Amino acid sequence: MASLNLEDAANTKDEDFVDPWNVQSSSATGVDYAKLIEKFGCSAIDQGLIDRIKNVTGKDVHWFLKRGIFFSHREMHKILTLYEEKKPFYLYTGRGPSSEAMHVGHLIPFLFTKWLQETFDVPLVIQMTDDEKYLWKDISMEEVRRIALENVKDIISLGFDMDKTFIFCDFDYIGQCPEFYRTIVKIQKHVTFNQVKGIFGFGNSDSIGKIAFPAVQAAPSFSSSFPLIFNGRKDLPCLIPCAIDQDPYFRMTRDVAPRIDFQKPALLHSVFFPALQGANSKMSASEPNSSIFLTDTPKQIKDKINKYAFSGGQATVEEHREKGGNCEVDISFQYMRFFLEDDERLEKIKQDYTSGELLTGYLKKELITILQKLIGDIQARRKTVTDELAKEFMTPRKLKFNY
Amino acid sequence: MASLNLEDAANTKDEDFVDPWNVQSSSATGVDYAKLIEKFGCSAIDQGLIDRIKNVTGKDVHWFLKRGIFFSHREMHKILTLYEEKKPFYLYTGRGPSSEAMHVGHLIPFLFTKWLQETFDVPLVIQMTDDEKYLWKDISMEEVRRIALENVKDIISLGFDMDKTFIFCDFDYIGQCPEFYRTIVKIQKHVTFNQVKGIFGFGNSDSIGKIAFPAVQAAPSFSSSFPLIFNGRKDLPCLIPCAIDQDPYFRMTRDVAPRIDFQKPALLHSVFFPALQGANSKMSASEPNSSIFLTDTPKQIKDKINKYAFSGGQATVEEHREKGGNCEVDISFQYMRFFLEDDERLEKIKQDYTSGELLTGYLKKELITILQKLIGDIQARRKTVTDELAKEFMTPRKLKFNY
Repeated sequence: MASLNLEDAANTKDEDFVDPWNVQSSSATGVDYAKLIEKFGCSAIDQGLIDRIKNVTGKDVHWFLKRGIFFSHREMHKILTLYEEKKPFYLYTGRGPSSEAMHVGHLIPFLFTKWLQETFDVPLVIQMTDDEKYLWKDISMEEVRRIALENVKDIISLGFDMDKTFIFCDFDYIGQCPEFYRTIVKIQKHVTFNQVKGIFGFGNSDSIGKIAFPAVQAAPSFSSSFPLIFNGRKDLPCLIPCAIDQDPYFRMTRDVAPRIDFQKPALLHSVFFPALQGANSKMSASEPNSSIFLTDTPKQIKDKINKYAFSGGQATVEEHREKGGNCEVDISFQYMRFFLEDDERLEKIKQDYTSGELLTGYLKKELITILQKLIGDIQARRKTVTDELAKEFMTPRKLKFNY
Repeated sequence: MASLNLEDAANTKDEDFVDPWNVQSSSATGVDYAKLIEKFGCSAIDQGLIDRIKNVTGKDVHWFLKRGIFFSHREMHKILTLYEEKKPFYLYTGRGPSSEAMHVGHLIPFLFTKWLQETFDVPLVIQMTDDEKYLWKDISMEEVRRIALENVKDIISLGFDMDKTFIFCDFDYIGQCPEFYRTIVKIQKHVTFNQVKGIFGFGNSDSIGKIAFPAVQAAPSFSSSFPLIFNGRKDLPCLIPCAIDQDPYFRMTRDVAPRIDFQKPALLHSVFFPALQGANSKMSASEPNSSIFLTDTPKQIKDKINKYAFSGGQATVEEHREKGGNCEVDISFQYMRFFLEDDERLEKIKQDYTSGELLTGYLKKELITILQKLIGDIQARRKTVTDELAKEFMTPRKLKFNY
């Protein structure tokens, strides 16, 4: 995880590698996002855009925007103009259900999407790419479908409005909706192997399933994929909040859209979530100590943070008091940037840690309290999410919205 | 169209080119099928196999078998053993609906499949690859779907038993049956770009839709694709009657089957149907005079055969009486090999034409009568095929058969 201050980050180093399956950065502060914006050809979310979001919605913007956690976009101004003109659009996000336990980093796009849904009052579709995970991983179809359903329940536990949210697994929904498959094939007709090779780095020994898959992730960007949800409208614009590593899919989607008479989706991109061990350490669902999971107990949360959260503090208390701590690398502080809503409190902690007044232990204690509450609340709601409720969210049906 | 006598044909030339999209032969007698058997690695249908089919079914075999029109197979003996053991299997054939008007050549696999269905009393699935035609042709999705439905009605007019026949269009059925999509992805996971490149000649500038499609044609070879049809059974063996140019799809299918715990489908291959203008002329649905179409009037049939059917006769009547006609290249005779059921009558015509007793005009007259009746009967049935009846054939449902 980088410093989220893009100007600072811009000068750290030359090349990070980011695609949907690999994020590599050798820097202690993580990926250089300013360089990534340049490389991907997207636009930085600047103060002007943030102010405009505030103005057109008449609501305070989410701290993810103010703090650069969502840092990049494509055509968000177009979406705001639609909103001003009271014209409809919809949200699309998703998850590749590769592991049963979602960690707190997985929550970022969903928490932000929930805020977008509530702020703009728009419908939302959530794609679970169980087919992708089956194609990429050494996992059975039965197992990946089981995991996908567990993840759906986790996502529902974040509090999405059922009247405005449709969640679907590819292995189910493609077999329920001929228009979805037709949209997929329409995209597949207009994308060559050379193009997916260039965008995703596919090679000749990759499976034809992998090669064809990008069209499956692209298809929900077009409202033609959801005739029951959107009442047959094929022209509804789409806004996609996602982590920046998913952008290659949507560069391809935006490239193909005009050739098949569809609208290009707009995007909002988030930074990556750092591992407990630090921004240049790999976070993995198969390494339980690399993050905090939705299934962790309060004690596990406490123990993991105390034991593993990388410290930006100095070697001794005396030295810390003298030189101060480094918020840019301190994981407790970085996690609070994601999960502590109170701007003033976060700023005060930053100042006092940087000055040396606060020790790492204090930040860890703060973070433990915040995450125990966040995860406790989700776990409480998770208990109420029955198979029936999940089924309701996953039933293709007209969503409630005005147009 | 080659001489259907494989020993004769074996020595004609070196290389024909046959894949699902191109059949090229420079020989006046068409493709060298003996060489093709060797190249594709399939087996010739020999007298032993024909006798065994006759013995296990207790019925006379179809003239397509006796005359080498179905000339090659893969594992047909295994199917016969299943039949002897009273174990179930099913038939699968299909059509790429590229043109509204089907010609008499398109009937060959269907007429033979109908005979197989009646002789072995087994269920049948017929795939209309509207998605394939959309991917390969410059045609809209709406148009290809409209053509597919017209073709379905043509196929129904051949007299298939609705209780034992399920006809489906990919653009509809994939969106009706999650298990079909899951079977497709299972295949796609286990086939690489290198493999489809080798089998189908795909290149880097081909669309990802084309690259992924072979799995869609492969999937109906596995009964897992039809849970409603086969009552959830995933292990039913499959027999595929088709023209030899479709074999590459099923070589791939047979290659991947054991890796995904499915059974390899068995196959029966037919020769190609010759154009009116002769075996080395290209037959095309966009060239109305290259064949006889199901929509032709009796007069059109008569005029086309009289005007275009390539003659194996001599330049003058005197010369013909002296030297005799050549049945190997005479299209009227070749078409009668497909459509004149009476073996003795056909043999008599062959002898009398070869001796010079019969003139080409007589053969043309015979063929005109045969095709006018065949097509007239189909057209009469076609009038009774309503949208409702087509819909019934296309409704996923349990088929009637014993197991």
